[in-house]
Amino acid sequence: MLNKIDHIGVAVKNLENSLAFYESMGAKPYHFEEVASQKVKVAFIKIGESNIELLEPTSEDSPIFKYIEKNGEGIHHICYDVQDLGKALEMLKKDGFKLINETPLKGAHHKLVAFVHPKSTNGVLTELSMDEK
Amino acid sequence: MLNKIDHIGVAVKNLENSLAFYESMGAKPYHFEEVASQKVKVAFIKIGESNIELLEPTSEDSPIFKYIEKNGEGIHHICYDVQDLGKALEMLKKDGFKLINETPLKGAHHKLVAFVHPKSTNGVLTELSMDEK
Repeated sequence: MLNKIDHIGVAVKNLENSLAFYESMGAKPYHFEEVASQKVKVAFIKIGESNIELLEPTSEDSPIFKYIEKNGEGIHHICYDVQDLGKALEMLKKDGFKLINETPLKGAHHKLVAFVHPKSTNGVLTELSMDEK
Repeated sequence: MLNKIDHIGVAVKNLENSLAFYESMGAKPYHFEEVASQKVKVAFIKIGESNIELLEPTSEDSPIFKYIEKNGEGIHHICYDVQDLGKALEMLKKDGFKLINETPLKGAHHKLVAFVHPKSTNGVLTELSMDEK
């Protein structure tokens, strides 16, 4: 059901100041977007079939602002591309996983997304996503 | 220079107890290995062109044991596959990045690897790897 790693979300204080490593390795951001529901600005950098999604909080009540305050900058979540998000959530629920979102939300990049609670997944905040039909 | 995400390293207390999410999503581990130099046992789970590398410490002086003690279980590092590891390290050094390994080491899975210090990369512990020739 997991087709590929869609992206790795990285919490950063400032998008522009966080591009140096990728640019030094020849990878440039190709898409910037503000995701109002999460109070973040994001930049996507394509690497193979996956992306790095840099996340900069736009407000002090953004979950990313709180994450950085507690943990510092760093890897925030993994997002997997799945064929059928509804079915994946149903299977995880049946298998006893704790879901943050029991029904899909609108995410960045015209995707439907849902998060699985890190308590169910060895501390890894896990997002599942599929293209919006 | 970054061909793809080779793997995401996830620090866990016990490999077998950490497979449930992946197995629920139809992904099974295909390779287990002990990496003596890092004092870890690892399990690889293939997802698209990338892997999840679960890392279980085999000793209390394993860097992964210390990581879990401090941070709990969770995402530990990202590893990118590069064409020419020597050249990548040279470029990063020239661009002022702090390297943990200035020359490649032997990693799991017959790869040569080197780590970039997370202070240089917004808190993301970053590994670069290439196949051993």
